[in-house]
Amino acid sequence: MIETTTDPSALRRRCDDERKKGQRVGFVPTMGFLHHGHVSLIERCRDVADFVVVSIFVNPTQFGPNEDLESYPRDAEGDRDKCQKAGADLIFAPPVSAIYPEGHRTSVSVQDLGDGLCGAKRPGHFDGVCTVVSKLFNMVGPAVAFFGEKDYQQLQIIKQMTRDLDFPIEVLSGPTIREPDGLAMSSRNAYLTPEHRRQATCLNRGLTAIADAARKAPLPASRAVQIAKEIVEAENDARIDYLEIRHSGNLQPSDQVGLGQSVVAIAVFFGSTRLIDNRVI
Amino acid sequence: MIETTTDPSALRRRCDDERKKGQRVGFVPTMGFLHHGHVSLIERCRDVADFVVVSIFVNPTQFGPNEDLESYPRDAEGDRDKCQKAGADLIFAPPVSAIYPEGHRTSVSVQDLGDGLCGAKRPGHFDGVCTVVSKLFNMVGPAVAFFGEKDYQQLQIIKQMTRDLDFPIEVLSGPTIREPDGLAMSSRNAYLTPEHRRQATCLNRGLTAIADAARKAPLPASRAVQIAKEIVEAENDARIDYLEIRHSGNLQPSDQVGLGQSVVAIAVFFGSTRLIDNRVI
Repeated sequence: MIETTTDPSALRRRCDDERKKGQRVGFVPTMGFLHHGHVSLIERCRDVADFVVVSIFVNPTQFGPNEDLESYPRDAEGDRDKCQKAGADLIFAPPVSAIYPEGHRTSVSVQDLGDGLCGAKRPGHFDGVCTVVSKLFNMVGPAVAFFGEKDYQQLQIIKQMTRDLDFPIEVLSGPTIREPDGLAMSSRNAYLTPEHRRQATCLNRGLTAIADAARKAPLPASRAVQIAKEIVEAENDARIDYLEIRHSGNLQPSDQVGLGQSVVAIAVFFGSTRLIDNRVI
Repeated sequence: MIETTTDPSALRRRCDDERKKGQRVGFVPTMGFLHHGHVSLIERCRDVADFVVVSIFVNPTQFGPNEDLESYPRDAEGDRDKCQKAGADLIFAPPVSAIYPEGHRTSVSVQDLGDGLCGAKRPGHFDGVCTVVSKLFNMVGPAVAFFGEKDYQQLQIIKQMTRDLDFPIEVLSGPTIREPDGLAMSSRNAYLTPEHRRQATCLNRGLTAIADAARKAPLPASRAVQIAKEIVEAENDARIDYLEIRHSGNLQPSDQVGLGQSVVAIAVFFGSTRLIDNRVI
């Protein structure tokens, strides 16, 4: 069975030992309830690292007071199995008290990139992400770390943070992995009722329609939003949280889709379940 | 002549090389214009590390808009000489553009500990300190880093940040080094006119008077403040910025001096020159 630890000091010793042996440490941070998206990141990490650490930690500081921290799905046994099969070497699954002991009071914040999209809808979310990722980076000390492109804004923020704080870490990404009908894989898909699951393909259908339209010629952002909005709102229970065109690099609002420099980002509620997706076009 | 680099990548490679040889890297961050206090930190670092890095960087983000960033004293040649004599192995003296390239937008912040004292008087100061120290920690990757006890609040904040962000670094300190007449050594002493230099011993005299009084029995904070205030205000040009009794650990206000659990912290202006000092009692 794959090696697992809940203790930050044991994790650090283990990674130090591997580094001393000349092994290149790779890292895939997750919140568990792993799906093919995570597995694909672990496999990519395996390709470029000698010793692959997967963290499984549902980080409370990146959840808002009315969000799904308590109900976030968990499956320790299934996760172990998937990590092992994907070629991970060590699982780090700490309790909250090991990450945020009494009196913890430091936070890491990236300006601007978190102002819109998920950052605007989930105040404090990205500070929570940056802080826990900084901590995990320092505990694991990886040479390379992988993040999923489904969380596009998060990926840009982590890259910026890593560069700005001079972490000696290469941040790489893996593409969004989709169900056969196009729904982006997410641990939160587990919340969906069968009816909502059926409707939820509208995120990807909306993004695809924009990409198709923009393939012919650059598209005004307002027209792009209209195209996707019609598709999403045709589903009875879909409530758009945001649907925006941004510059893919700096995430500033963009008035045009195309030329490989824009990202269409969408968040949609089905009941209390919030799904996100994006497409770089 | 001691090895010097201005380039973060060269610094990192050099420290990586030493680590690979099994050397323990030590680090002393400074703003240059070194005095015996810095030298004493370098010597202490030398005692516990194999390869000692001294950074010399006047960090603009820890200066307020009306502070002395432009006039901060510099002496690159003298600093090199002192570093070499004290046993340092490498000086890192980067330009501002190497530390804060265009588009830098990440900051590190420690809550609560920076609310009073210098943090209250210099808004943003400690965020600037924490951010640059995080960056330098990641560039150098030391096993141990030294900070002066004269900057007591800074030392507590750096210790908290290092613990909270799980830097694999031991933060150690060295005592305040004083002139023969008791004035705490500081690069800013260079600003003082001869008359202000003469008056400036009042900080240490005030602290000493409190320590003497508290040696007999714990002293109410109000009485302690009164004792030092009379001594400082007897000097014509001394203007107290703050004079406070705090718990030495969490820096919360304390109503008593003594039992080894309080710190008396003082900041005094002479003209536009601001000096600080403290005593743990």
